[in-house]
Amino acid sequence: MSTWIFYSARGTCALATHIALHEAGAAFELRPLDFAAKGQQAPEFLSVNPKGRVPALVTERGILTETPALLAFVAQQFPQARLAPLDDTFAFAKLQEFNSYLCSTVHVSHAHKHRGARWADEPEAHEAMRRKVGANMTAHMTLIEAQLSGDHVLGANYSVADAYLYVVSGWLAGDGVDIAQFPRLQAHRQRVGQRPAVLRAERELQG
Amino acid sequence: MSTWIFYSARGTCALATHIALHEAGAAFELRPLDFAAKGQQAPEFLSVNPKGRVPALVTERGILTETPALLAFVAQQFPQARLAPLDDTFAFAKLQEFNSYLCSTVHVSHAHKHRGARWADEPEAHEAMRRKVGANMTAHMTLIEAQLSGDHVLGANYSVADAYLYVVSGWLAGDGVDIAQFPRLQAHRQRVGQRPAVLRAERELQG
Ligand SMILES: N[C@@H](CCC(=O)N[C@@H](CS)C(=O)NCC(=O)O)C(=O)O
Ligand SMILES: N[C@@H](CCC(=O)N[C@@H](CS)C(=O)NCC(=O)O)C(=O)O
Repeated sequence: MSTWIFYSARGTCALATHIALHEAGAAFELRPLDFAAKGQQAPEFLSVNPKGRVPALVTERGILTETPALLAFVAQQFPQARLAPLDDTFAFAKLQEFNSYLCSTVHVSHAHKHRGARWADEPEAHEAMRRKVGANMTAHMTLIEAQLSGDHVLGANYSVADAYLYVVSGWLAGDGVDIAQFPRLQAHRQRVGQRPAVLRAERELQG
Repeated sequence: MSTWIFYSARGTCALATHIALHEAGAAFELRPLDFAAKGQQAPEFLSVNPKGRVPALVTERGILTETPALLAFVAQQFPQARLAPLDDTFAFAKLQEFNSYLCSTVHVSHAHKHRGARWADEPEAHEAMRRKVGANMTAHMTLIEAQLSGDHVLGANYSVADAYLYVVSGWLAGDGVDIAQFPRLQAHRQRVGQRPAVLRAERELQG
């Protein structure tokens, strides 16, 4: 297997895949993009991912994007890392359900803070969207808090969903949501934040 | 296996899972919700899916939501139906990438037409969002058109992604986007629209 290339950027959802790659022990070269310099719109990157977004993973078979797809891919490609319940179709579907909810609903709610220009042109509309981010993130986390039981998203066992939840719950403070009102989520965040793969991925993106 | 219960509603993304269930030959009872009567907010349904959305599938193991998770689940649960490249981790990831893009970006863009209240409170903001839906859907379909080659999303073989694309491309006319500008997408729509499982699912939701 040739070395993969992984595109990421600081403060983004790509951290979840980055963590999963380290959990799996995958060999990859990290290419951090500078969003302040619009690196995601540079022609070199658009030829990798025409959507102009991270994460993007270049493999020997081709390029992959989209966090839920990448997380399941890493888990399936490295079964010995036990990052997903690969032998249990229903449990795997619950993992995917969780990741899809984070991707399509929670991440999207958060994105209305800084990326309102995707969905409207008027600055007043962007302001209106920004005002609702905290309430939406609170509602989503209330739902997640209610379904957290045990140490991890799937219960006893760590999975790629824990990395994803860790990344998304890291946005709460900036969205004006106090995580202390969600004690299980807060404990989850502390637990996952101590994992070597998480510390390593975070360290690699500081630079 | 006890009979599953599948919650859907007319004109929604749940049609994709409905089609997949028929492609797979799954036994299930269809429970259509009446969105005009706010059936998705009725206590009985919220006890099934606290998110108040369709699709939702009740199985003997528990409840599943989220279109990409359900599509992969149906494909894995009925391998003989060949609805996904289950033996090829990379090809499966490409399928999931496509489904995740439809779910988190394309569907979300479309939802800004009627569901703006999710992301802002002011009617002016909802109007601003509505004005951008056509341009966003056009941009997304331009990207999809460029990657369509062969008869199906994955190339030669039909998969659950084709059912999902069929459902989403069915929203274009109502979003003010002329599908004729995307000839491969238009041919895909005609091809998939003739499948018995598609005709059957559409017929079942007319009533
Ligand atoms: N559905 C995609 C969304 C990817 C995404 O939105 N990434 C953001 C960072 S969190 C990005 O690259 N944004 C750059 C931009 O909008 O210009 C996924 O889950 O991977
Ligand atoms: N991410 C979910 C989204 C589900 C969703 O938004 N469903 C819509 C219909 S297309 C719904 O039930 N809306 C009801 C409402 O918003 O009240 C999925 O892909 O399944």
